[in-house]
Amino acid sequence: MLVTTAREGRANIMPMSWHTMMEFEPPIVGCVISNRNYTFDIVKKTKNCVINIPTVELAKKVVACGNISGRDFDKFRAFGLTQVLASLVAAPLIGECYANLECRIMDARMVAKYNLFILEVLKAWIDPLMKTPRTIHHLGRGAFMVAGRKIKLPSKMR
Amino acid sequence: MLVTTAREGRANIMPMSWHTMMEFEPPIVGCVISNRNYTFDIVKKTKNCVINIPTVELAKKVVACGNISGRDFDKFRAFGLTQVLASLVAAPLIGECYANLECRIMDARMVAKYNLFILEVLKAWIDPLMKTPRTIHHLGRGAFMVAGRKIKLPSKMR
Repeated sequence: MLVTTAREGRANIMPMSWHTMMEFEPPIVGCVISNRNYTFDIVKKTKNCVINIPTVELAKKVVACGNISGRDFDKFRAFGLTQVLASLVAAPLIGECYANLECRIMDARMVAKYNLFILEVLKAWIDPLMKTPRTIHHLGRGAFMVAGRKIKLPSKMR
Repeated sequence: MLVTTAREGRANIMPMSWHTMMEFEPPIVGCVISNRNYTFDIVKKTKNCVINIPTVELAKKVVACGNISGRDFDKFRAFGLTQVLASLVAAPLIGECYANLECRIMDARMVAKYNLFILEVLKAWIDPLMKTPRTIHHLGRGAFMVAGRKIKLPSKMR
């Protein structure tokens, strides 16, 4: 995933590998954002961010975003990514991503000990033209698993 | 993932879709286990479980485990899965899985509100003969994404 933030008119992007759904209603997502990252302080202070879901076409830019800090560097401009205004939060959406989740901090109690932000998803966007998004799943050290085929089994699970 | 538990000599299995890495050292995993599941009470009381990682060959059994409660049903026997003794926890490993993580509750403060168990991984097992494990990733309602190809990019990320 790519987490976008904004503060004082400057937008930034950070790749994030560790996250999980936590609830359907309201939609809650748990995200680990290291306190060594520039994004950590901004999310803590602004209390919002956008989670952008890239596909394999963006893999090189995802890694590039992870190889440099946004402290003194404009990743949107350098990597040719498009800022799209969000509707409910200050952080921008990344136009090239398959989906975007506008989020607000719901619970910060696990931030100090685990860097875990519990976020409520306020609004979700998806690219309806992208029928089979090839998402990427970080395996560590720049290796990714690309989403493969889909299977469907009869299930009572949600 | 398949979460195994044991209490009073009875082992059980529950599929789990929502989980994330939280730390490398010590290895910490966050898992959402619904309080509507039989497994919820057992993990809370015994303070341990095993996270078993199945591959696509086991997909039908994974879904079968989710379609019935273990309250009055022996899933290991019914679905032909093998209990293997864990080394540090009471819950058994599933022999047919690609990998198994023996876990102990590290932090239960988020259980009441979010059903989130913060688990320390005490020991990890892997099948060294399975070179390209086709893991499955729950998309909801019995649909799964099967792990596809791997890509590697030059990265400073861990």
